[in-house]
Amino acid sequence: MALKKAGVLGATGSVGQRFILLLANHPEFEIHALGASGRSAGRNYKDAVTWKQTELLPESAKNIKVEECKPDGSFAECDVVFSGLDADFAGQIEKDFVEAGLVVISNAKNYRREADVPLIVPIVNPEHLSVVEKKVEDAKANGKTKQGFIICISNCSTAGLVAPLKPLVDAYGPIELLTSTTLQAISGGGFSPGIPGIDVLDNIVPFISGEEEKIEWETKKILGGINDKGTEFKILSDDDIKVSAQCNRVAVSDGHTECISLKFANRPPPSLEQIKQTLRDYVCDASKLGCHSAPKQTIHVLEEQDRPQPRLDRDRDSGYGVSVGRIREDPVLDYKMVVLSHNTIIGAAGAGILIAEILLAKNII
Amino acid sequence: MALKKAGVLGATGSVGQRFILLLANHPEFEIHALGASGRSAGRNYKDAVTWKQTELLPESAKNIKVEECKPDGSFAECDVVFSGLDADFAGQIEKDFVEAGLVVISNAKNYRREADVPLIVPIVNPEHLSVVEKKVEDAKANGKTKQGFIICISNCSTAGLVAPLKPLVDAYGPIELLTSTTLQAISGGGFSPGIPGIDVLDNIVPFISGEEEKIEWETKKILGGINDKGTEFKILSDDDIKVSAQCNRVAVSDGHTECISLKFANRPPPSLEQIKQTLRDYVCDASKLGCHSAPKQTIHVLEEQDRPQPRLDRDRDSGYGVSVGRIREDPVLDYKMVVLSHNTIIGAAGAGILIAEILLAKNII
Amino acid sequence: MALKKAGVLGATGSVGQRFILLLANHPEFEIHALGASGRSAGRNYKDAVTWKQTELLPESAKNIKVEECKPDGSFAECDVVFSGLDADFAGQIEKDFVEAGLVVISNAKNYRREADVPLIVPIVNPEHLSVVEKKVEDAKANGKTKQGFIICISNCSTAGLVAPLKPLVDAYGPIELLTSTTLQAISGGGFSPGIPGIDVLDNIVPFISGEEEKIEWETKKILGGINDKGTEFKILSDDDIKVSAQCNRVAVSDGHTECISLKFANRPPPSLEQIKQTLRDYVCDASKLGCHSAPKQTIHVLEEQDRPQPRLDRDRDSGYGVSVGRIREDPVLDYKMVVLSHNTIIGAAGAGILIAEILLAKNII
Amino acid sequence: MALKKAGVLGATGSVGQRFILLLANHPEFEIHALGASGRSAGRNYKDAVTWKQTELLPESAKNIKVEECKPDGSFAECDVVFSGLDADFAGQIEKDFVEAGLVVISNAKNYRREADVPLIVPIVNPEHLSVVEKKVEDAKANGKTKQGFIICISNCSTAGLVAPLKPLVDAYGPIELLTSTTLQAISGGGFSPGIPGIDVLDNIVPFISGEEEKIEWETKKILGGINDKGTEFKILSDDDIKVSAQCNRVAVSDGHTECISLKFANRPPPSLEQIKQTLRDYVCDASKLGCHSAPKQTIHVLEEQDRPQPRLDRDRDSGYGVSVGRIREDPVLDYKMVVLSHNTIIGAAGAGILIAEILLAKNII
Repeated sequence: MALKKAGVLGATGSVGQRFILLLANHPEFEIHALGASGRSAGRNYKDAVTWKQTELLPESAKNIKVEECKPDGSFAECDVVFSGLDADFAGQIEKDFVEAGLVVISNAKNYRREADVPLIVPIVNPEHLSVVEKKVEDAKANGKTKQGFIICISNCSTAGLVAPLKPLVDAYGPIELLTSTTLQAISGGGFSPGIPGIDVLDNIVPFISGEEEKIEWETKKILGGINDKGTEFKILSDDDIKVSAQCNRVAVSDGHTECISLKFANRPPPSLEQIKQTLRDYVCDASKLGCHSAPKQTIHVLEEQDRPQPRLDRDRDSGYGVSVGRIREDPVLDYKMVVLSHNTIIGAAGAGILIAEILLAKNII
Repeated sequence: MALKKAGVLGATGSVGQRFILLLANHPEFEIHALGASGRSAGRNYKDAVTWKQTELLPESAKNIKVEECKPDGSFAECDVVFSGLDADFAGQIEKDFVEAGLVVISNAKNYRREADVPLIVPIVNPEHLSVVEKKVEDAKANGKTKQGFIICISNCSTAGLVAPLKPLVDAYGPIELLTSTTLQAISGGGFSPGIPGIDVLDNIVPFISGEEEKIEWETKKILGGINDKGTEFKILSDDDIKVSAQCNRVAVSDGHTECISLKFANRPPPSLEQIKQTLRDYVCDASKLGCHSAPKQTIHVLEEQDRPQPRLDRDRDSGYGVSVGRIREDPVLDYKMVVLSHNTIIGAAGAGILIAEILLAKNII
Repeated sequence: MALKKAGVLGATGSVGQRFILLLANHPEFEIHALGASGRSAGRNYKDAVTWKQTELLPESAKNIKVEECKPDGSFAECDVVFSGLDADFAGQIEKDFVEAGLVVISNAKNYRREADVPLIVPIVNPEHLSVVEKKVEDAKANGKTKQGFIICISNCSTAGLVAPLKPLVDAYGPIELLTSTTLQAISGGGFSPGIPGIDVLDNIVPFISGEEEKIEWETKKILGGINDKGTEFKILSDDDIKVSAQCNRVAVSDGHTECISLKFANRPPPSLEQIKQTLRDYVCDASKLGCHSAPKQTIHVLEEQDRPQPRLDRDRDSGYGVSVGRIREDPVLDYKMVVLSHNTIIGAAGAGILIAEILLAKNII
Repeated sequence: MALKKAGVLGATGSVGQRFILLLANHPEFEIHALGASGRSAGRNYKDAVTWKQTELLPESAKNIKVEECKPDGSFAECDVVFSGLDADFAGQIEKDFVEAGLVVISNAKNYRREADVPLIVPIVNPEHLSVVEKKVEDAKANGKTKQGFIICISNCSTAGLVAPLKPLVDAYGPIELLTSTTLQAISGGGFSPGIPGIDVLDNIVPFISGEEEKIEWETKKILGGINDKGTEFKILSDDDIKVSAQCNRVAVSDGHTECISLKFANRPPPSLEQIKQTLRDYVCDASKLGCHSAPKQTIHVLEEQDRPQPRLDRDRDSGYGVSVGRIREDPVLDYKMVVLSHNTIIGAAGAGILIAEILLAKNII
């Protein structure tokens, strides 16, 4: 089968580098276009980038000519475009790409709150992609050969939080109260300049700009439904679920740890063992669809009393599996537990790749 | 005024070293006896200890002969004995000392749950010392010249947690729901061997043995009252206050950070500004008594959105002041905030010294 | 081809765990016997071990019954036995194994200085294995069917140091002066308890017990020759090469960095470009033999001015490749450079596995 | 005595903040003028600065109006001006100040290599101040009432390196070979943005731009002499002393560690015990002059085998004392040792303050 052509916007940044690593040896995609700021445009990728990954810069990407982030040139031929752009630039550029009929999967926050834009954690709510699927079908029905749309990747700490919630809600009904105190890795802060060393050496910073609001709002979209026409998303209200987040930056390279606590709406709540079993049994749709990057085990339930730990557990299923440990009763809400997810995989670039795989498996691209 | 004679049990350990540092230039106490295990006994302190503090080993302590931890010899002459013993040894030794009529202020957990033993955070509940004060008065009334007793220092993370709660409860009535997710420093783990480096390098450990139980239980004793006879403590029940803790070890040397959330029993709860003002206005009894180590400002309310931070804020008032920041409304309970306290000062050895100063100011020793 | 049977001594320790990981999916070896202290003996491996690796405990090892470290039972059937024993125990146990006719590849220091024991860095001096090859041949000639012997893995920081020296000495003659200041990872210190966290948090420790002596002595054996009979090693003298090491422990999990400086005996020394080219061109014998774990590129010469860095470069060739950067003229000796090697791979367990692969390729086992 | 008026250039930066902390309670100086970029000018200091020190912003500095960095306004009245400016701006601004007749003590590198500018480590070569003393005397003789001049603070890692060398050279004659491998703290990198966290988390960076050249060159000026006229400095040549530096950035907040090695020109070299005694006996001129910040003990010779360590030893004598440990024979040169110095005190702002104290003690200002 011919490989699908993939473009990467913001290719020299930290998210862009991750997209390139994940695409380099992908069985379904090939890198076709790389876009960066004007300063980099025109140079070979290897000369434009300051590569700071633990894996080497893939040979196949080294000599790709970097273009400006415009929906013409090589980008016009792309089946899917991954965006690692900063929010400052993503607004206009991604809009231009969609209007040019391109499919954009974006890590930027700009369009997450749009009513018709899916906000996706691929191991959680791929059914939300039906909104763009319908858009494509309607376009075809109207004789259009090309229909642009955008899909947003969720915030990284939201991704880890909702992963165990989804199967629990499916099995035991709504969660009405939810708290998460996060201990977040520094890789989420990029690296130009990223999180200053002096902030995380013998220190924590109990604040990440905008992060708590993202967790509290995005959870309500991801766990919410779709309107009857199948065209827009219904956001849960505070009457449905109250969410409270406290976010901290800690001296960890990769892997967000979240100490969460939750209360079910239905009384009595499920038993401790039911919760564990439900999490163990959960198979995400991406796995059922046989997607290349889908985790073998979506949620790893750890029984050791001192796990999950980011250094030891973040790489389960290449970072697409989420680890949950210390599940126990909570004197204040119903249950508390510790959730670990890989912020640059399931919480950023990796999620984008798996979303694209799902789109492909569903013939949307 | 003649200096009071102080003894230190477990003098070569990390808590013992802190006691010695704090006593070395103290205007009211002098080091009179140092106790350690048999291996160290008989040697000069400087030869028995592996000193690992940022301040130099005080000259005045260097050549004190280390004794065994027995309530005779120099210890018999002590006005107060500070115990930094491990729980494995504290049980018997501290009992022997009290039975010999000595006053013991202990950092060990062994006697914290005894009905007649005060569990003290000196900037929070020094009024609990009335139970030992009464014991001493009763003894005097009975013609006894010497009355031993023990006072327990609270667990380190409990100390930081209850500091801001005390003035709030005094002003606005009981707290009925309380959660704390901690990010705890490694100095609390001692240093022989202490927390392994591999556990906190690019990592966190979401578990500290026994810590959550201590926070959940000790809070109920410290915020509780005394029986009518003035002889025993009343522990709050789950009907009074539900407490839930999640404890994490992080790569910080000193200073425990706690992300807390609370709900008042009374409706409506106080306003955000009332809470801040009450915390700012709080003056602990130790300060009113003019104790040497008492903080000038008991609680520092920080308005910067990214504070408190352990490296920057842990040393306020020499570690006796507690910093509280990010006070804000909580969608799930009433309010959430970040509390930072110095675990080896207000959460351990330093608390012991301040307790002794209060005992002295009240003529109990 | 039937898999060779491998045993692991000290199987529950940090080096032992690494041996097991490397053996679990090995195409030539299978785990046949696991040995640990009496406390663990008799239990299944998964119950005996506190597994602290980033990869999961291999399924194939989970239910192997742990034995005592004695050369009978399953160990008697092993083709090769890897020892991760502490020096306190290695002396007697390894002796017993060799006397029972077993082949031992040991990470312990005990026998490194024996005149007839090869001290091997497998990408550097596999030709030293001729001494045991001869021993085996002599035994066969004498009608013995089984000939035990021991091979020692070098100290971890020695391994990184000598890697670039070997091709340089081969090409340009002896090095007469050599200095190395090391910045060593904490994984080398094991994990029960390993390096205390407080030692490496916002700190370095400029001392590692016995390490400088090991570097200074082992270099002289590894770069030395074999006597005419082929039975013993000739250690270089101070007249041949003077070596000076300064060792530091730093907050790095894996990967030893060494700032080295060297002076060649021959005048004029090679040019900067000659040195780089020689290092780039070096193909170690293990690679020529086609060994499974041999690096594709033995030495990676990095041109970026701020490399190698442990987090980014330690995993080259699965940790079997050594990275060398910042090669430049030295005002005091001839050249200085920065060498990075993976201490648990090429500097410990991984080296043991590659040595076994070489033995197999040469039909010595 | 009236306090001398001090100005601070670059007052909002990391070096500037340190100058302000050190001046706030100084018995001889008072803060009279604060200068920063145009963006900050006109605002009160507390509103212009993002204060990131472990000590609180001094009350006395909070409401000082920040000015532009021009030698008029309040700066014109200053007895001494401390410059924490970035090299990008220091060149022109410092020149303007000196031409306006002001005394500038600068942490910037711009004028360090000027023939008539003293490059000073105040515990090492205050005698080099005679060049500006002469300049002032000549001016007075010529009837000038005001004579501007600049004094440069040395590079931070140079300061630590030369501290133990000075007394050794005075006692035993020239050093002809000198190597230093540094492990440098991140505070030297400032904090906007400073060293990225991802660079020093589980990592080291074996390169600091321009640092090795600074060490190698500045050592030759600081250990060099003055011409016969007393007007210019004589820089040592490679024939006098060869210096080789290798610089690394490590995860330490404050305190540069240097593993140094040296060879004396005279044969035989002094004995190990002579070296230790000479270092212990060294009393720097600033101490003899009774300067406020001068260390009680200039060089601390540590006998513990694992010291100095930055977290434990950097604050000796408030950071003005230098610690030297592990002094031992070196197989390649004569002796090797580990030197620890506080990079922001004796290596930057603190040095500036002590230089000003010396100028005052000598009536140069």
